[in-house]
Amino acid sequence: MQADIICVGNEILTGLVENSNAGYLARKLWSLGISVRSSAVVADQAEAIGEALNTALEYSEIVILTGGLGPTDDDLSREAVAAHLGLPLVEDKEAVRKLEAFFAGRGYEMPASNRRQACVIEGGILLPNRLGTAPGMLIRLEGRMIILLPGPPNEMTSMFEESVLPALREEKKDTVAMAKTLKCVGIGESLLEQKIKALGSWEYPEISYVARGYEVFLQLKANGNPEQAKAAIRGAEERLRAALGDNIYGSDDDTLTSVVADMLVENNLTLALAESCSGGLLSDTITDVPGSSRFYRGGIVAYSRFAKTELLGVDEDLINREGLVSEATAKAMALAARMKFNSQVGIGITGVAGPQSDEDNRPPGLVYTAVALENEVYCHELSLLGGRRAVKERASQLTLDLLRRCLL
Amino acid sequence: MQADIICVGNEILTGLVENSNAGYLARKLWSLGISVRSSAVVADQAEAIGEALNTALEYSEIVILTGGLGPTDDDLSREAVAAHLGLPLVEDKEAVRKLEAFFAGRGYEMPASNRRQACVIEGGILLPNRLGTAPGMLIRLEGRMIILLPGPPNEMTSMFEESVLPALREEKKDTVAMAKTLKCVGIGESLLEQKIKALGSWEYPEISYVARGYEVFLQLKANGNPEQAKAAIRGAEERLRAALGDNIYGSDDDTLTSVVADMLVENNLTLALAESCSGGLLSDTITDVPGSSRFYRGGIVAYSRFAKTELLGVDEDLINREGLVSEATAKAMALAARMKFNSQVGIGITGVAGPQSDEDNRPPGLVYTAVALENEVYCHELSLLGGRRAVKERASQLTLDLLRRCLL
Repeated sequence: MQADIICVGNEILTGLVENSNAGYLARKLWSLGISVRSSAVVADQAEAIGEALNTALEYSEIVILTGGLGPTDDDLSREAVAAHLGLPLVEDKEAVRKLEAFFAGRGYEMPASNRRQACVIEGGILLPNRLGTAPGMLIRLEGRMIILLPGPPNEMTSMFEESVLPALREEKKDTVAMAKTLKCVGIGESLLEQKIKALGSWEYPEISYVARGYEVFLQLKANGNPEQAKAAIRGAEERLRAALGDNIYGSDDDTLTSVVADMLVENNLTLALAESCSGGLLSDTITDVPGSSRFYRGGIVAYSRFAKTELLGVDEDLINREGLVSEATAKAMALAARMKFNSQVGIGITGVAGPQSDEDNRPPGLVYTAVALENEVYCHELSLLGGRRAVKERASQLTLDLLRRCLL
Repeated sequence: MQADIICVGNEILTGLVENSNAGYLARKLWSLGISVRSSAVVADQAEAIGEALNTALEYSEIVILTGGLGPTDDDLSREAVAAHLGLPLVEDKEAVRKLEAFFAGRGYEMPASNRRQACVIEGGILLPNRLGTAPGMLIRLEGRMIILLPGPPNEMTSMFEESVLPALREEKKDTVAMAKTLKCVGIGESLLEQKIKALGSWEYPEISYVARGYEVFLQLKANGNPEQAKAAIRGAEERLRAALGDNIYGSDDDTLTSVVADMLVENNLTLALAESCSGGLLSDTITDVPGSSRFYRGGIVAYSRFAKTELLGVDEDLINREGLVSEATAKAMALAARMKFNSQVGIGITGVAGPQSDEDNRPPGLVYTAVALENEVYCHELSLLGGRRAVKERASQLTLDLLRRCLL
């Protein structure tokens, strides 16, 4: 079973609004074992919508359109799809009533233009919208499903969860494909591929690789009857975990940060940071985890020599002797973070974010990251590729992995 | 002049990787006055790439593909495009030499699989890649331009800036549509629209509005001959600047951060932060600016009460009396940041990121942000909407704006 996604909207085509709907739908469909053949963005024009729908229906059993369901003249999805299918739009009495109630509840009379939103393509059903005025629509036609969803991400996702997901699950109940993502870090994509190929054939379940910075995601997917697919995924996961060990840090919705946060909470440990080249990014990442104040004491972004010596209290002689970017300085920063914040674990990161080399002529991408635990300080030297932002991201990512391995 | 964008990659179709390339290219093309007809994502399959290219060439003079230029078997863009155009791939001696040098510089021998990356479609030119091994490609054919770019966003954007942008500018020099974006902050979208409509008609140049967090971008666009279009944009910009004053913080590639960074450097001022609810995000944003070490001394992420009292030295009685989330605490944090880092400007941010209320029952989204200058401390109370991440982002954004207004 295959799907096409069509996102309608000039604001996406001009790049002013990020297209988060396409990624969300792709992830949801993938987790149901439905592959996305193509995902397109087209303008608010009847012709463009019709053409995209035409191509999509040629290839896919499921076509999901988002956007263009609003009340204004440039919201054309309903009409364009109806015209393309050669079916009339019919007003739905119940939907008119709901719209009027929606406006009445806010103390307004319904503008005439909103009446269009109560129309459904003949033979289709309307999907309720808890968060806005535009209902969605689901049309079954010659073995295909055409689904229209509103453009605003919050309305789209809640409608998808509440109305579309159950319909797709029902549709796929006899042929469900199981899917699972295993997430790896600390091993390069080629070495990983080599190890996995050595385990034997990967036709069932299928496996695919996605590199993300220094992480690699393994996507497993098995079609067929549910029991068989589940067993195949389970078996594959066991083989992979045996072969890759600690390089697998989690699965599906886990992130490196959420996994490390859970480990700290489980072990009743507190954390403090001293960041230089990563500039606060690691702190930002950690504080994105809800409840991080349970374990995170805080951090110092020591972006100047002054901050390193005066605020962190790193020995000036040590910096002069070993350099601002050195193993010794990273370790001293980790210990200082631990002490200053009265924390059990301390982290120190120092390096050259680029684009230029530093004053000691150390190259962009050279980073030292250190973790101070109760009795020991671990340090890694990293040579990171990419621009300034990539160096910051990868330094943060690999520091989290070093911490994870220390805690294992 | 019209363009199609084709992003190649299974990782985007499964939703594992956000498709930031499409948005970036859309914005760049828009700023050149080139409209994007459609932006598609397709799988790493020769057939899918060929079909998408086929449709794109039917409608558009410019087709940009990203992704699929790597060295492995599932990197198929080069071959698929060559096959579709019926042109051979030819090895480029100079490119082979460069690739070998790239690997030699890292102490490796070049793997045989990378040799494919030195091939160019007959009649095309290779575009250098400063940040990776995959060169891009530009092919001119029957009045059309086909451009292949690597998938990793940092490689793609640097290649676009360095090689593609100049080529497109040259291509469009006689028929240029002028476009300009003015960026506003500190004024709501509806009030902004009202003020702008009061200025008169906006048919030439056209104007459109895009809200992004607490910023609004005004996009001006004028077709026609270059002189006329330039004059129309210039006139409109003058009218808008007169009406909106300080609410316009910059244009086009400016960001709030880059504008504030420039102001600090021009005024020879140094900056230090004390962040609580924003968790290091503001520090991360500031250190994304190359050269930020010229003015940025560093920051303290005071995520615990201990960090606020012991490390920043905020008076415990004041916290007990006024609360951790209060104007008084934000101001004390700003003053402490200034002093601790021996800096001229200090910033303090304290608030409730959510999702829950804090222990004093203050609601998520309540944030106090303070700026300490030489003789004065300014503070704003903010009530921010959205989830945890949105609160962090908006708190950082509005703090930068407060600093900007203080420096004006």
